[in-house]
Amino acid sequence: MANLHIRNVTAVIMDEHHTILEQAAIVTDGAHIHFVGPLAQAPDPAADDAVIDADGMVAIPGLINAHTHLAMTLFRGAADDLPLMTWLQEKIWPVEAHITRDDVYWASLLGIAEMLRAGVTTFNDMYWHVEAVADAVRESGIRAGLSAVVIGVVPHAEALLHEAEARVQAFIAEGHPRIVPFFGPHAPYTVPEAMMRKIVALAHTYGVRMHTHLSETAGEVESSRNLSGMTPIALMDAYELFTRPTTVAHGVHATDHDIAVLAHRGVGVAHCPSSNMKLGSGIAPVPDMLRAGIAVGLGTDGAGSNNTLDVLREVRQAALLHKVGGDATAVRAATALAMATRQGAAAMHLEHLGMLAPGYLADIALLDFQQPHLTPGGRVVSHLAYAAYAGDVDTVIVHGKVLMRGRQFATLDIERIRARVRESADRLFS
Amino acid sequence: MANLHIRNVTAVIMDEHHTILEQAAIVTDGAHIHFVGPLAQAPDPAADDAVIDADGMVAIPGLINAHTHLAMTLFRGAADDLPLMTWLQEKIWPVEAHITRDDVYWASLLGIAEMLRAGVTTFNDMYWHVEAVADAVRESGIRAGLSAVVIGVVPHAEALLHEAEARVQAFIAEGHPRIVPFFGPHAPYTVPEAMMRKIVALAHTYGVRMHTHLSETAGEVESSRNLSGMTPIALMDAYELFTRPTTVAHGVHATDHDIAVLAHRGVGVAHCPSSNMKLGSGIAPVPDMLRAGIAVGLGTDGAGSNNTLDVLREVRQAALLHKVGGDATAVRAATALAMATRQGAAAMHLEHLGMLAPGYLADIALLDFQQPHLTPGGRVVSHLAYAAYAGDVDTVIVHGKVLMRGRQFATLDIERIRARVRESADRLFS
Repeated sequence: MANLHIRNVTAVIMDEHHTILEQAAIVTDGAHIHFVGPLAQAPDPAADDAVIDADGMVAIPGLINAHTHLAMTLFRGAADDLPLMTWLQEKIWPVEAHITRDDVYWASLLGIAEMLRAGVTTFNDMYWHVEAVADAVRESGIRAGLSAVVIGVVPHAEALLHEAEARVQAFIAEGHPRIVPFFGPHAPYTVPEAMMRKIVALAHTYGVRMHTHLSETAGEVESSRNLSGMTPIALMDAYELFTRPTTVAHGVHATDHDIAVLAHRGVGVAHCPSSNMKLGSGIAPVPDMLRAGIAVGLGTDGAGSNNTLDVLREVRQAALLHKVGGDATAVRAATALAMATRQGAAAMHLEHLGMLAPGYLADIALLDFQQPHLTPGGRVVSHLAYAAYAGDVDTVIVHGKVLMRGRQFATLDIERIRARVRESADRLFS
Repeated sequence: MANLHIRNVTAVIMDEHHTILEQAAIVTDGAHIHFVGPLAQAPDPAADDAVIDADGMVAIPGLINAHTHLAMTLFRGAADDLPLMTWLQEKIWPVEAHITRDDVYWASLLGIAEMLRAGVTTFNDMYWHVEAVADAVRESGIRAGLSAVVIGVVPHAEALLHEAEARVQAFIAEGHPRIVPFFGPHAPYTVPEAMMRKIVALAHTYGVRMHTHLSETAGEVESSRNLSGMTPIALMDAYELFTRPTTVAHGVHATDHDIAVLAHRGVGVAHCPSSNMKLGSGIAPVPDMLRAGIAVGLGTDGAGSNNTLDVLREVRQAALLHKVGGDATAVRAATALAMATRQGAAAMHLEHLGMLAPGYLADIALLDFQQPHLTPGGRVVSHLAYAAYAGDVDTVIVHGKVLMRGRQFATLDIERIRARVRESADRLFS
């Protein structure tokens, strides 16, 4: 595979020192970054290497969407301005009962197209028909954590668990370099204790990560306390869920004790500010989580409740939302951007991802900074967090391969994908 | 002037009935809209009329930015993550002391370019060197309310007032069809009673509108109560400010009594959700204001505290922010979109603006809806409020004239503007 030389770029490394290199070069070696540094010190391109002149552009590590339900692009705009349980029970679940593998495949490709356009190179998914999502990942070239979902409160729960186990086995056997398998027990309120403990045991057997929803709403926490005397997070700790590397979506109503548990167990959190706002779920205690040393990433949640998969929007939202209590210094621009990159990788327990550094995976987004809304310029981290938007993303590279250049897709037939998703939506919502 | 025929468009009328016309046509007659309706019933284009085939596009009334400080594009990213008074006193005012008329002119053109790219066709400005802002408005083709700013707590306050009066006189004499003059007393904490009363008298003399900041922070309200025994809004009512049509920016800490006063006096409010969040100022009681019948528009505030002039972002932010208290039905998508159009016009006391209807001013934005993040489609108002972004705006028409088509400007030399603003920023921040 030819290597890639990105030259004349402003590189936002996303290390802990907030390093920014101007007039830099980034050189890949297969799937990894081989060199990041001053252009003058960069190795010369070989004859068959690809060269991108990125003058006027800013390079960042590909953004990480630490929690989504990708195929819910089908539900975008189908039901807005409703609280979580009304939305789930009346608008989402009745339609999901009719979703086919094919619907999920095309809706996942649509979501991947949307994410690439927004500079997102890794996502952490939880949805039905995971094999269809995996096909979309394999074909498109994006990177993903894919969850074999389990819900225990349905008649065919045992079958779901066997299916999930089979998927995990298959993913491990395949060893795809861009797919990381997770077990995805949906939530404590949908997975009873016995099944949750079985899933934990299987996760140990296969050595895989966990992805679940915890403490999204006040009602969920109250109900958990009534049933078990514990918060959802304390309950999952009692079930030993966190003995596996785990990503917890939301944590909106995490208590101080919960935060201490998450920090002690090394649990990652996927903070989903727009979704939490839209569903009226509340504001997660992210500043407290960060102070406790928890790896907090950013998630869009599904397009049904966001209504996009645009992680840059969540960067801005995270930086703004935690200031409403009155502390204008909470979650600064650089912190929010780290949540979408380095911290997002840590929240998913993925190594060598989320930074522009030698040895790291070559997942890179280039943004065109020659724009009115990014002028005067020079204040790169501020502009990335507060002013840039998905439309500024020009080029996206995943695993060393260019998947989008000049906003044109290399691997996706976007008109065909849009047409197929419209067909699915017409059928499901007719 | 040749008329304009927009054909095959999905027209979001923004009337009170949420009317959406598919396969529609919009026809202008000079500066106004002449026809909006089914394509089949549209008048045929004359030989010299311009025709835009808008298949796959959505037409909305041009967005209204009901409160900004346009030339503060210079300050974009210069100082983030600080509370209002620290930000103003330490970061903004020391630099503003050195700003020239030329700086304001170029920074205003930059802001206009950014707004046109975001579908914004009218803005309500308050800034120094208003004559330079006016030049930028005249040349670019955008529409604006321009405030002759007054601050009373400086040695040359009387001179500022005379200057403001002269500007208002000149604007009235000019009678420019796209410029509406306002008096802009900055805020009660910068304009003492005697001067505020003089401005009110002048506004009556010249028959012009008022634009001011009220109750932006809790500290401002507390200080006003300590000094006068009244909230800033009650105090301004006592000074008879609201006997002129007034636009109040922020109103974050408006009390129930304040809201009743604003409603009774017919005062418009410019709600600035992102700026209020970023400066840690709090959450304005917008649902209460709307219930009281107040015309609430949306403002970006200046790019120093937003950090953009992107009104679609404020639509999404308004729809999300007021749900964080737990009511997921607060400020629905259609309500937020109305705030950026019809209600924004009302908040600025401008007639025949903010709707796609015969007799209304021909200020129109066309958005390209053939995008992954706007698929499956069909849910137009939801997509506009929650999923669309500035990059989707393809064409912008103001006063019947096409100012942007295919994202290319008709009246602005954007590279020259960007270069001049970078020069100003380099000088001011060196």
